[in-house]
Amino acid sequence: MFTSETYIARRAKLCEKVGTGLMLFVGNVDIACNYKDNTYHFRQDSSFLYLFGLQIAGIAATLDAETGEAVLYMDELTMDDIIWMGPQESVSDQAAKVGVTKVLPKAKLADVISAAKDREIHFVPTYHAETTIRIANLLGKSISEVENGASLKLIKALISMREIKEKCEIDELRKHMAVGRQMHMAAMAMAHEGRTESEIMAMLDRISLMNGQPVSFPTICSVHGETLHNHSYKNTLKKGQLLLVDAGSESPLCYATDHTRTSPVGGKFTNQQREIYQIVLDANNAVAAACEPGLTYREMHLMACRIIAGGLKELGIMKGDMDDAVMEGAHALFMPHGIGHMLGLDVHDMESYNDTLVGYDDETTRSTQFGLSALRLGKRLREGFVVTDEPGIYFIPALIDKWRAEGLFKDFINYDALEQYRSFGGIRLEDDLLITRHGCEILGERIPIEIDDVENEVNKDTYHNK
Amino acid sequence: MFTSETYIARRAKLCEKVGTGLMLFVGNVDIACNYKDNTYHFRQDSSFLYLFGLQIAGIAATLDAETGEAVLYMDELTMDDIIWMGPQESVSDQAAKVGVTKVLPKAKLADVISAAKDREIHFVPTYHAETTIRIANLLGKSISEVENGASLKLIKALISMREIKEKCEIDELRKHMAVGRQMHMAAMAMAHEGRTESEIMAMLDRISLMNGQPVSFPTICSVHGETLHNHSYKNTLKKGQLLLVDAGSESPLCYATDHTRTSPVGGKFTNQQREIYQIVLDANNAVAAACEPGLTYREMHLMACRIIAGGLKELGIMKGDMDDAVMEGAHALFMPHGIGHMLGLDVHDMESYNDTLVGYDDETTRSTQFGLSALRLGKRLREGFVVTDEPGIYFIPALIDKWRAEGLFKDFINYDALEQYRSFGGIRLEDDLLITRHGCEILGERIPIEIDDVENEVNKDTYHNK
Repeated sequence: MFTSETYIARRAKLCEKVGTGLMLFVGNVDIACNYKDNTYHFRQDSSFLYLFGLQIAGIAATLDAETGEAVLYMDELTMDDIIWMGPQESVSDQAAKVGVTKVLPKAKLADVISAAKDREIHFVPTYHAETTIRIANLLGKSISEVENGASLKLIKALISMREIKEKCEIDELRKHMAVGRQMHMAAMAMAHEGRTESEIMAMLDRISLMNGQPVSFPTICSVHGETLHNHSYKNTLKKGQLLLVDAGSESPLCYATDHTRTSPVGGKFTNQQREIYQIVLDANNAVAAACEPGLTYREMHLMACRIIAGGLKELGIMKGDMDDAVMEGAHALFMPHGIGHMLGLDVHDMESYNDTLVGYDDETTRSTQFGLSALRLGKRLREGFVVTDEPGIYFIPALIDKWRAEGLFKDFINYDALEQYRSFGGIRLEDDLLITRHGCEILGERIPIEIDDVENEVNKDTYHNK
Repeated sequence: MFTSETYIARRAKLCEKVGTGLMLFVGNVDIACNYKDNTYHFRQDSSFLYLFGLQIAGIAATLDAETGEAVLYMDELTMDDIIWMGPQESVSDQAAKVGVTKVLPKAKLADVISAAKDREIHFVPTYHAETTIRIANLLGKSISEVENGASLKLIKALISMREIKEKCEIDELRKHMAVGRQMHMAAMAMAHEGRTESEIMAMLDRISLMNGQPVSFPTICSVHGETLHNHSYKNTLKKGQLLLVDAGSESPLCYATDHTRTSPVGGKFTNQQREIYQIVLDANNAVAAACEPGLTYREMHLMACRIIAGGLKELGIMKGDMDDAVMEGAHALFMPHGIGHMLGLDVHDMESYNDTLVGYDDETTRSTQFGLSALRLGKRLREGFVVTDEPGIYFIPALIDKWRAEGLFKDFINYDALEQYRSFGGIRLEDDLLITRHGCEILGERIPIEIDDVENEVNKDTYHNK
């Protein structure tokens, strides 16, 4: 359970790691959609959530690495706030929940920062220009100085803490996996001719929202699974197509789920689909079976790629030595992305800090090879990591044509055999794994993934008349 | 129908009105939720939509007021874009749809602006700091210079055009009202004991999304209707409560619907609720019956307030002369907001320009009196305006206690009689009106609003087992 002690302990540990200077955490503000007062749903900054827990817009905090003093900058409600937004708890009660006893009015933050002008001020990278401008004003720096001025020491300290999930975080994640599962079960039950991508996406959105929070990232729900981040929902499903759904929900405390399943529209895979599906499933299962502390996720990625390449060789799509093919990157025509990423408060956990700092370290460097370069997590696994396991096989006509025209990897790819897969689409299968002491655990009850089980779910057709 | 001619004609008219200088329109970018690549749904800027129609992130346009030349700044897709986002139309095909023949790469915008450095550069106010920074960099100005540097001439020209809805806009609005209606019918059918605000909100969200676009503003769905902008959905409905739902949908071309209905949880208003409801309904109907070109919306607001005050006097809640009470603002304890606002591409149409510039003019000035000051639209109605008609009566305990303690309006308010309404909540009823040549039209098929009709809808209980 998250208690005030959770936050007090995290802040104490962070102070110890950072050692000197004053840390400034500017929470997110409400972000305008098409004018200032018409806002997107409020999402607190993840660093702020991790250290100060409060899902309130426009507040800030300081944490003194030397004295350990934590201060929240919040204003009491006005009568206008009550009329428009309803009665709320007092700021001191809210601060007490996250173990903070000192609360100052927002306007005092500038004085506090100004008084610390001779000290080192640490802040994390920003992703809202509103926050960049605010920090620039507070510190008397230019926009580009703030854009380039985040504290590497603070970033590294936070990564080292956030990458190892605490018991309360694992409990929250594990519990919320049920909502992610419900979303995917609904999508399977709706994978029928005549339904639209948009109505299925809308149903998943509803399931997430009614369980407390919006989806954790824009849902991918497409009969064109070969487009990796497809956010268009214009198609009507046709029998025989594959529906790829990559979707997750945000938990009440803002932890993300992230799963992908691929279903046969109408409930029956074709033989061609079944063959490709089984290769992807084998790769997914092999990663879950192999993961354990001490192995690098780069190894897991390459193992999955070898399984995919081997499977495609058996089908006559690839040829030659598959170890060589994977080493040279020929398989990336079919799997141009990485096997997975960290998961936590962010669906690509901590990506706002810089994904290479999160996924690599002194021992592992990020590749520049097409495909492997997209792997967000390459470093050694540790107990308490939560990662996604998401192999896929895609047939991307534009990429196939380009490689063929350039004569790439002719020794490994049988371009003629590929022709019959041109309109295949794509398959991806994704689970969320918790790295345990001696292996890993698929978080939550596993969403149906075996061929027969997926066909069964689709055939239940539960949403038939809804 | 929207055609390339629609946009060509609008741009020509705008050039004529602005007369001199170069107009710069910076479209919206994808806005990060919790890190750069995890974005909120993309919403194009409304000025950009009005003049250039394209719902594409990160593009910009210039329009030369003197020569009439329109230029779009867009880049062709890269292979990476195709892999991640799928094949798209060429930029020239997209530009042609909105009647633009000249397209330059994005990087050329800086050169064009730089070459025009001796000319007047017009831009509209910004609401995304990303846009503010971009304009500041383009013009070599500071953030605060951009924040304060929008062109009043351009704003006034755009308001004078956008406030009169064209036939294609009215058709789009009228057609999409059916989705807004469907949302409210669903909410009524779900207004039953045991359901949660969040599941009803989620259903409305789904209905909007599956019809193409997200809700047009954060849904208000609350058994605490007295909190005017309640965005919390934590309550479970109890029989005898009032469920206030203020919600709308965005059409495929980004026009907004905006309706409010208030339903009795369980399907039967109490006598007390029925009495208050009827007063609000009378005010709503009176506005729709009276609206016509030439009258000011301030008059409509005051008429509705007099009806509300008169009704409350009959119930013994108010006393004395109701014309005086409304003139002095005593009724604002019960209706602290305005009767309505313009509606169009934005739910508060053009509010990013400045709501007072939109709703007032040389002839009408905005009041500073509590209640009337919240009226966004005070000026004379014209044929082609689309406005909301949304009277309400609220019992806000914190506000009642404050006024009573301060001894405010003791001659008009019977504070003792108010006690039995302390936990009443609030009622608001809102329709969207098109001002016609001689009167007005409620846009779309009217959502059930008479007491019996609303009770009937709730009693259908259509969503019983879903």
